Amino acid sequence: MAKEPKQLDELFHDTLKDIYYAEKKILAALPKMAKAAQSKDLTAAFNKHLRETQGQVKRLDQVFKMLGKPARGKPCEAINGITDEGAEIMKEFKGAPALDAGLLASAQAVEHYEISRYGTLRTWAEELGFDDAAQLLDATLAEEKITDKNLTALAKSVINLEAETEEEDA
Amino acid sequence: MAKEPKQLDELFHDTLKDIYYAEKKILAALPKMAKAAQSKDLTAAFNKHLRETQGQVKRLDQVFKMLGKPARGKPCEAINGITDEGAEIMKEFKGAPALDAGLLASAQAVEHYEISRYGTLRTWAEELGFDDAAQLLDATLAEEKITDKNLTALAKSVINLEAETEEEDA
Repeated sequence: MAKEPKQLDELFHDTLKDIYYAEKKILAALPKMAKAAQSKDLTAAFNKHLRETQGQVKRLDQVFKMLGKPARGKPCEAINGITDEGAEIMKEFKGAPALDAGLLASAQAVEHYEISRYGTLRTWAEELGFDDAAQLLDATLAEEKITDKNLTALAKSVINLEAETEEEDA
Repeated sequence: MAKEPKQLDELFHDTLKDIYYAEKKILAALPKMAKAAQSKDLTAAFNKHLRETQGQVKRLDQVFKMLGKPARGKPCEAINGITDEGAEIMKEFKGAPALDAGLLASAQAVEHYEISRYGTLRTWAEELGFDDAAQLLDATLAEEKITDKNLTALAKSVINLEAETEEEDA
């Protein structure tokens, strides 16, 4: 028997599993990034985002429940690639002045991946008439955008601080 | 002899090679996505972004020249993962109603990766006093943000169109 052509609800469910996997991966990466960061502000920002991510996973659990599907991830090569690059930076720039700038760049690549996925999922949820799911996804999207803005501000202050320290050392 | 601690200029150069590789990968992916798309508007959008990407590569060539370094990419696992996911969607949703929605989601994941990288590079260029490079990177960043907005609008119209077609077919 030929399979039914794949519809938007199937793509929605697939992408939900993709971001669920990604969030779990981020939950595992953030404590390492918080530990590696040289600036206390950056450690605090990563720890704050860790707590936020735990809440975002709970929202995804609710969305799976609304769909009547088990909350389950599926390997997402995109987030694997992004977090691998972050791990490489931690290794290559260990103890180096530019470490925090590199960690921030990785964190912002993660944020933007999430922003794109949650934006897409929210649009599809609206189209599919999953209004409660759309609201939950929108709440996470708003959080991710704020986190990205905060990281941008931190990126500017972190590299200014590095430059000042270098001048003092010179 | 111990290596010098890695500074921001080295991180900048590394990340420039990362996005250079990513842009080349995107140049290779876009014609396939344009060919796969069912909607003419989406094909046109991918072709337009292909031309834009060619211009963005030229800007990167100029930035490498300003640094006195050869324009060379280095494998970027993040973009490999993102484009692999796109290729998977093309395969899994071939001929399916949700194909275009999936292609758009992939394209937006690519856009957001670029937005994060160009945002980071621009901030670092400013900090390093590479003002001309910062201007070029900012021009590309602005283009990517507009492309992402256009893709969001298209995502809404594409899924509405699918829904209408399904109703007519029903």
